Amino acid sequence: MAHTMEAFFNPSSVAVAGASGSSMKLGNITLSNLLRFGYRGRIYAIHPRAGEIMGVPAFPSLRDIGEPVEVAVGVLPRELMLDFVADCADAGVRKVIVCAAGYSDAGAEGAAMQKQLADAARERGVRMMGPNSVGTISTSSGFVTSLMTLDPLQEGDISIIAQTGLFAGGFARWIASTQRFGVSKVACLGNKADVDEVDMLEYLGEDEATKVICIYTEGLHRGRDFLELARRVTEGKPVLMLKGGRSELGGRMAASHTGSMAGEEAVLRGALAQAGVVAVDGIDGLFDAAKALSYCPVPAGPNLGVVSITGAGTVLVADACQRRGLCLPAPSPQAARRAGEGLPGWARLLNPMDIWAATLQGSVEDAYRVILRAFAEERNMHMLMAVFTLVPESEFDAAALLCEVKEQHPEKPLLACFLGASEVDRRRWCSALEGMGVPVYDSVERCVDAAWALAGYGLRRARAGRRGAEAPCRGNGHGD
Amino acid sequence: MAHTMEAFFNPSSVAVAGASGSSMKLGNITLSNLLRFGYRGRIYAIHPRAGEIMGVPAFPSLRDIGEPVEVAVGVLPRELMLDFVADCADAGVRKVIVCAAGYSDAGAEGAAMQKQLADAARERGVRMMGPNSVGTISTSSGFVTSLMTLDPLQEGDISIIAQTGLFAGGFARWIASTQRFGVSKVACLGNKADVDEVDMLEYLGEDEATKVICIYTEGLHRGRDFLELARRVTEGKPVLMLKGGRSELGGRMAASHTGSMAGEEAVLRGALAQAGVVAVDGIDGLFDAAKALSYCPVPAGPNLGVVSITGAGTVLVADACQRRGLCLPAPSPQAARRAGEGLPGWARLLNPMDIWAATLQGSVEDAYRVILRAFAEERNMHMLMAVFTLVPESEFDAAALLCEVKEQHPEKPLLACFLGASEVDRRRWCSALEGMGVPVYDSVERCVDAAWALAGYGLRRARAGRRGAEAPCRGNGHGD
Repeated sequence: MAHTMEAFFNPSSVAVAGASGSSMKLGNITLSNLLRFGYRGRIYAIHPRAGEIMGVPAFPSLRDIGEPVEVAVGVLPRELMLDFVADCADAGVRKVIVCAAGYSDAGAEGAAMQKQLADAARERGVRMMGPNSVGTISTSSGFVTSLMTLDPLQEGDISIIAQTGLFAGGFARWIASTQRFGVSKVACLGNKADVDEVDMLEYLGEDEATKVICIYTEGLHRGRDFLELARRVTEGKPVLMLKGGRSELGGRMAASHTGSMAGEEAVLRGALAQAGVVAVDGIDGLFDAAKALSYCPVPAGPNLGVVSITGAGTVLVADACQRRGLCLPAPSPQAARRAGEGLPGWARLLNPMDIWAATLQGSVEDAYRVILRAFAEERNMHMLMAVFTLVPESEFDAAALLCEVKEQHPEKPLLACFLGASEVDRRRWCSALEGMGVPVYDSVERCVDAAWALAGYGLRRARAGRRGAEAPCRGNGHGD
Repeated sequence: MAHTMEAFFNPSSVAVAGASGSSMKLGNITLSNLLRFGYRGRIYAIHPRAGEIMGVPAFPSLRDIGEPVEVAVGVLPRELMLDFVADCADAGVRKVIVCAAGYSDAGAEGAAMQKQLADAARERGVRMMGPNSVGTISTSSGFVTSLMTLDPLQEGDISIIAQTGLFAGGFARWIASTQRFGVSKVACLGNKADVDEVDMLEYLGEDEATKVICIYTEGLHRGRDFLELARRVTEGKPVLMLKGGRSELGGRMAASHTGSMAGEEAVLRGALAQAGVVAVDGIDGLFDAAKALSYCPVPAGPNLGVVSITGAGTVLVADACQRRGLCLPAPSPQAARRAGEGLPGWARLLNPMDIWAATLQGSVEDAYRVILRAFAEERNMHMLMAVFTLVPESEFDAAALLCEVKEQHPEKPLLACFLGASEVDRRRWCSALEGMGVPVYDSVERCVDAAWALAGYGLRRARAGRRGAEAPCRGNGHGD
């Protein structure tokens, strides 16, 4: 039997209330998104008079449709919402997405209205997403309820649970236009008067299309349930969390945004780590880690082997690794000997390995090849990182080289980082490398943060006994 | 009289040793950069046989040129460098840039060779940049000595002192192709056997074309001199520093990269703050802060007034501000009343102000206008920040609006941040906003970090008595 949340992503039919003849109305944006995404279910518009809107049949009320409707989207002001939920129940609609704001995000009066709305839904057996929600996206079904004009996203294995509409708004546009990772599902939960992270995590934990789960939350209403569930889910797939409102000031803003109460942050952070959830910093940190976990295998440990064309890259990588508690083991004598083949005799053979000297003698490609191969064979280097600075003088077919390394060592995550490049070169290289599954980052700090997230999930899996337990090196910064 | 360092940026003539008939030779790249940047001085190539290289007259040795040469660039292996420096001295060349690596970056033997080279230069009265340096860029004179093919950079007021060649390599290509800030001068100091940050800071402190000084260093050889000088320079212009090798591990890598000894980091950080230097994190942090200081006036204090179209933006801004010790003062009753005009009655009137509700009622532009104006008139909001998420539904002429605010309040820094956008929209808006002097950032964290750097310099100036001393708010995170 399908999970009860499945209907929010793959319904056989949807009704949109709030559509009209005017193309600028939010309800019409929802309709046009559904059409543009190629949603294959039946679509109905609810409108007092219109016979059809944008080719979608319109009815005065849900009950007039005369066929079962699985999900209704209420793109209506809050004054009309209580009636709308009652209409849903009367028409047998069991799932509703409430877009109106002005509830727990708007002080005590709004909070009381929200309780009334949630009670009404619960009493009538209707599951509600929101209020203050822009709903969901599913790339496989083409289902989308956003109030903001979106372009279809590439189908993939990252799913997002968010207490903000951004992920079905600006960020969805950013992913569609610039990123090479694919998305499976997005749920924008709003004020979470009913459906919350626990419902969604349970669903996405079982969802075969989802390999990586990203969460943006401003506070967990059911913390204990969430942690217990997360412990189970993270045995099988990574869960990344960005917690908004971690500071006292941010917590106060969270109360205004979605009516969330910020928790005891230190306690929560420890409990999340115990449950195997990787807590990331910032939106960039969330996407960077998700991309790494989508692209890469789970590493057997937290140690990095790094090659950099620039000495500053080695210094900044080392600073970033130490901050994150990742280790950079010295190369074995054998690896150092092999690595030295691509460099002048005076070059120092370390990890991170600086190969600037190879630029001076025109052997950059050889240096990357020899050293990456040597490091890939080091048992105690669990992940590999290549730092490039893109200038015509160091240009070579990096994609072919990294592909070679990946094929020989498919068990080791391989990440790349650009320290400076023209925009044209950056795009070209990024497209070539990410096209073959090497995630690329624009700064060493972000690349190391992504490696840290990989290592954190590797540790979780090792604890779950899913891998041969390579002992994490001393000083690893993950959780327990 | 011109400062002695001036010749490294605006020499009347330059000789490049190491050029040849092969276009792939590093010395030829230096020549072609000089030609492409439109350097107006005389150029000579040093080559045993060629009569000319790329149209540049070639001579077997410096002495054969028969005219005074102000700077010589040695694009030669280290074995030839001692002779080259002696040739410079014999030919009356007083400034030399040594590109060869393999000195203090290569262990004890290399360090001994470096000492020998530096001693030779000093004894003969030659000032040396390097070794392991790629030299300098000056946009006003078109002088450039990089070994990497560069495109001309936009002339501007940011100058960079770096202990890495990246800023005359990949980063210069990145700035030229994607950024809207201008550069005055770049000095890549390499191992700093002679010319170091103190020489450069002294020069750039007096340089009228330089308004903002950025430093990437892996360790200061003359720490006391640097701090004393920095204290004077920061009275007049901001100095930003990214310190590589802050961690124990990074410090060890710095020793390999440029032979630097990492200092006592905590002590150094405190002393830098005392001297008014703003210590930034990461390359992004350095560029982000430099852009803000180049674009914006010096703020009278560290408090922000923030408008965000998304509630998550307000939460993340608050978290970032608290981390950085910046304050978000509550709006005065008068400002709150005015701000409320653009929003439904239930909206909460706070700082940061969430205007998502305006999207639902189609009055986004009004909301930004009314609130930015109200906040701009708050005496205790010293900087303004507008958070956008770019979707077609919230599209309006933001540049015109922000221009209006800037004109009415030229004394207040105004920063913008995009939380999600399609690449096309992002570029268009970024170009429009930065074209009128509003720096734009891709994450709230980076935007707040830039505001923090502005506040840090504002505090330095207030201490120097250069501004009416607005008291910084409690909890400000800058230095003393």
